[in-house]
Amino acid sequence: MKMSNLFAPTMKESPTEAEIASHNLMLRAGLIRQLSSGIYTYLPLGLKTLNKISCIVREEMDRVGGQELLMPAMQPGELWKETGRWDVYGPELVRFRDRRKRDFCLGPTHEEVITDLVRRELRSYRDLPVLLYQIQVKFRDEIRPRFGVMRSREFIMKDLYSFDTDREGMQNTYEIMYEAYCRVFERCGLQYQAVRADSGVIGGDLSHEFLIVAQSGEEKMMVCRACKAGYPEEEVSCSVCGTTSALEEKRGIEVGHIFQLGTKYSQAMNALFVDKDGSEKPIIMGCYGIGIGRTMGAAIEAYHDEHGIQWPWNLAPYQVCIIPVHVRTAEMVKIAETLYNTLQEAGYECVLDDRDLRAGHKFKDADLLGFPVQLILGDRSLKNNQLEVKIRSSDERVDINREDVLETLESIRKKSVHI
Amino acid sequence: MKMSNLFAPTMKESPTEAEIASHNLMLRAGLIRQLSSGIYTYLPLGLKTLNKISCIVREEMDRVGGQELLMPAMQPGELWKETGRWDVYGPELVRFRDRRKRDFCLGPTHEEVITDLVRRELRSYRDLPVLLYQIQVKFRDEIRPRFGVMRSREFIMKDLYSFDTDREGMQNTYEIMYEAYCRVFERCGLQYQAVRADSGVIGGDLSHEFLIVAQSGEEKMMVCRACKAGYPEEEVSCSVCGTTSALEEKRGIEVGHIFQLGTKYSQAMNALFVDKDGSEKPIIMGCYGIGIGRTMGAAIEAYHDEHGIQWPWNLAPYQVCIIPVHVRTAEMVKIAETLYNTLQEAGYECVLDDRDLRAGHKFKDADLLGFPVQLILGDRSLKNNQLEVKIRSSDERVDINREDVLETLESIRKKSVHI
Repeated sequence: MKMSNLFAPTMKESPTEAEIASHNLMLRAGLIRQLSSGIYTYLPLGLKTLNKISCIVREEMDRVGGQELLMPAMQPGELWKETGRWDVYGPELVRFRDRRKRDFCLGPTHEEVITDLVRRELRSYRDLPVLLYQIQVKFRDEIRPRFGVMRSREFIMKDLYSFDTDREGMQNTYEIMYEAYCRVFERCGLQYQAVRADSGVIGGDLSHEFLIVAQSGEEKMMVCRACKAGYPEEEVSCSVCGTTSALEEKRGIEVGHIFQLGTKYSQAMNALFVDKDGSEKPIIMGCYGIGIGRTMGAAIEAYHDEHGIQWPWNLAPYQVCIIPVHVRTAEMVKIAETLYNTLQEAGYECVLDDRDLRAGHKFKDADLLGFPVQLILGDRSLKNNQLEVKIRSSDERVDINREDVLETLESIRKKSVHI
Repeated sequence: MKMSNLFAPTMKESPTEAEIASHNLMLRAGLIRQLSSGIYTYLPLGLKTLNKISCIVREEMDRVGGQELLMPAMQPGELWKETGRWDVYGPELVRFRDRRKRDFCLGPTHEEVITDLVRRELRSYRDLPVLLYQIQVKFRDEIRPRFGVMRSREFIMKDLYSFDTDREGMQNTYEIMYEAYCRVFERCGLQYQAVRADSGVIGGDLSHEFLIVAQSGEEKMMVCRACKAGYPEEEVSCSVCGTTSALEEKRGIEVGHIFQLGTKYSQAMNALFVDKDGSEKPIIMGCYGIGIGRTMGAAIEAYHDEHGIQWPWNLAPYQVCIIPVHVRTAEMVKIAETLYNTLQEAGYECVLDDRDLRAGHKFKDADLLGFPVQLILGDRSLKNNQLEVKIRSSDERVDINREDVLETLESIRKKSVHI
């Protein structure tokens, strides 16, 4: 992608409404724009990262046998009345009537819809276990939307629902999903912790939250419901550095939540299966959510500095930004474009900053947008067939021969994805 | 994917509510399930085809310089009041108030939202032209939802919006998009026609509909608004067979609609840019929609027979279905699984019908689900190191040596994607 074409409106000044770094940087780097309080448009760079997270999540859900479907956002109120949540859920539930005056809501979660599907389609123990998931837009009319995509009114979630014949099956599925969640956040390059949590309005027996550890020293982390009855018990160990500490000292951003639901929904909605012995029993359920947009925000909380975002390799909208310090000579333009084509052919996602702007302006934008690697072409390096490689996260800079660029990038990539 | 794991609940009987073939077959083949009138869940096989269409659309939009973003479903009423559509749009517009009593609607289209974005972010002629698009869920509270995903209340659309400095630019963009639309439907394997059309509630100057020609003899095609003032003039030529005929004789299913909007929205919403001469002018817009779910329905209308769906190669959820006539011997199971692994490694998307069911049952399901190629393993063919290849669309059957399977599939693929 050439920067001159990219629709990524950046901002020099910090927007006043942004209380935390990720909100500030997502606005300044042109990843999102607010449409209304707590309602955001994802601009091209933001959507690219959102899709990268979705893709990792999808691969890990598929790996453990999850099957993707897509449920509606509009949900009939009658299903929510069956489970009693029509009354329990507060004004966070967006409710309206259709033209025939029937009650509807915009789904903040899909237990009712999936249970309704499954009670119609799954009848026998032979059909189970089944894991069904979607990546889809959800709605919650927050009383105080804030922190950008972190606490918004319309947001993208992955929600998976598991259906087992017995509690052992459900617990086994829960453990498999727990491991899948660990892989998701590892692949995203994020430090996470799983802590035992309150089941809240979703209900059920056992639940864990997955928290992203933000090392940025941000003071306004929005979610920390870590409780002392932990899993693993009273201490948590960091998935990356291995150090352990007492739970109450830890603070993080909730990006995932998994629940052993048991029969809460299947009993209320009469979702039964015929077991081996011919008897009808309620299906045993689990429910597993990941906030896709929130994971993106958490990644920025964890990886940024005063100049901008420092994307982990696997989440970066583009991994490499090529910066010719000027575009005044045909030679410079040609070398930059050749490099751009070479990298794209080698499978790197590249931005070429072909804009006729001061070098300082381009450097600032590249730092703000947070591409993991910058390749800087100056007049002097051009003469020596060299270029400058800058690693965004460490600010390391090194001059290399241009012919070594693929080798260098490959070694950076290898180091980066193992972080 | 092994059929024993696949969540694709099929139905033997035709559902009474289905008036047309695609609705009937999408239900019977387990592609969709109705949640409420005009509101559907896409099950795994349905979602796979939906994603294939989305992927083709995305590639063709990107090819002409489109940049993908993602706008919210929840839209503030105030924007719709700016353009006057809050009053013009009837009860099809789903309206509600949030907890602070502010007017909102669920977007049936996004002219207001994108114009609001662009008026804030694009200021200079140097920023234009820009093409922004999304693939996203839309809402229309139809008075009489019917025909399954063809006329539903919640549906998936691609909508692209173009922004130019002058009418020539807009017309140029329009022609480029027109060609991109032709490529989309060709790659989907569909016969289409573009006809000049009424702009309806979207408004603007010139518009064309893209219609899918369904040769199935279905009598209840739902949309035919072909008018006589045509482009190409008074006749239309079929994109595939080349025959021309008078417009009024043609009937088809509307799957795409493109509009030259001009300044309808930019003027109402004050979306201005500064031109070369320093003067402020309204941005010249175009708008380009494709119904993703509807394209899927239209493909089934065009390609099916009395036994089920006949997916075009590029839209099939899986291209190949391996059918061992029984799974009673270890040899049969082993050969079927080896074949399955071989094809997957070669990049084919495969289903292995590993279910312990009568062969006739499996054949019926494979025909119903419409995979382009069936590979049938019987006891006799096993002995001769052979298998039977059945082409779903033509019902051609041929015995081949098992070692020739990749070569055979490749030649079928080549023929298929050129249809």
